[in-house]
Amino acid sequence: MSADSTSFQRPEPPYYAVIITTLPSGEDPEGYADANRRMGPLSAKWPGYLGRESESGPDGRDLLVVYYSDAESIASWKADPEHLEVQRLGRERWYASYSVEVARVERAYGFRRD
Amino acid sequence: MSADSTSFQRPEPPYYAVIITTLPSGEDPEGYADANRRMGPLSAKWPGYLGRESESGPDGRDLLVVYYSDAESIASWKADPEHLEVQRLGRERWYASYSVEVARVERAYGFRRD
Repeated sequence: MSADSTSFQRPEPPYYAVIITTLPSGEDPEGYADANRRMGPLSAKWPGYLGRESESGPDGRDLLVVYYSDAESIASWKADPEHLEVQRLGRERWYASYSVEVARVERAYGFRRD
Repeated sequence: MSADSTSFQRPEPPYYAVIITTLPSGEDPEGYADANRRMGPLSAKWPGYLGRESESGPDGRDLLVVYYSDAESIASWKADPEHLEVQRLGRERWYASYSVEVARVERAYGFRRD
């Protein structure tokens, strides 16, 4: 996943953050890479999509935060047929472990050097 | 920061996540590294501290999520005198940009291969 920290303009809270950690199993790396390539654009298909932050660690682990304006977009993203198939194959093949948290952003602030 | 994805047992929601992105300025790297070394243990000093996830990207950028059971711990962490001094020096010297979001985790689920 690309590193695009602090790359998008946050709206005023409240909005939603989906915090995802993934640790790959090492099985079927080509299929996993292909699924990751498709899932980025798919997550941005919903009108409530705001942006993302992601960084990758050693052994392929990822920490990803995907932002949406509303909880309905997140439910609809999770239930998308192509996404469901990737979730199923992920549990069968690609992931050693993952965690998903849906969180409501209540306060946000930042700093950017002039 | 160390990569410790999916390394701690989440409680049942609700709980809180502080999502932090940082991009260093490159100024005073020794002071910045020293502050980072001190800030990890400091964030864990509050009884509501649950754990953290973090990954680093190219050019020193970090994506960090620190978890607490309650909003009071977060307010108290932010107002800690040593932490306030680091925040001030961060804006003066160490950061090109950062963002901080305080979010209430409403749902959480995960998977771990047997």
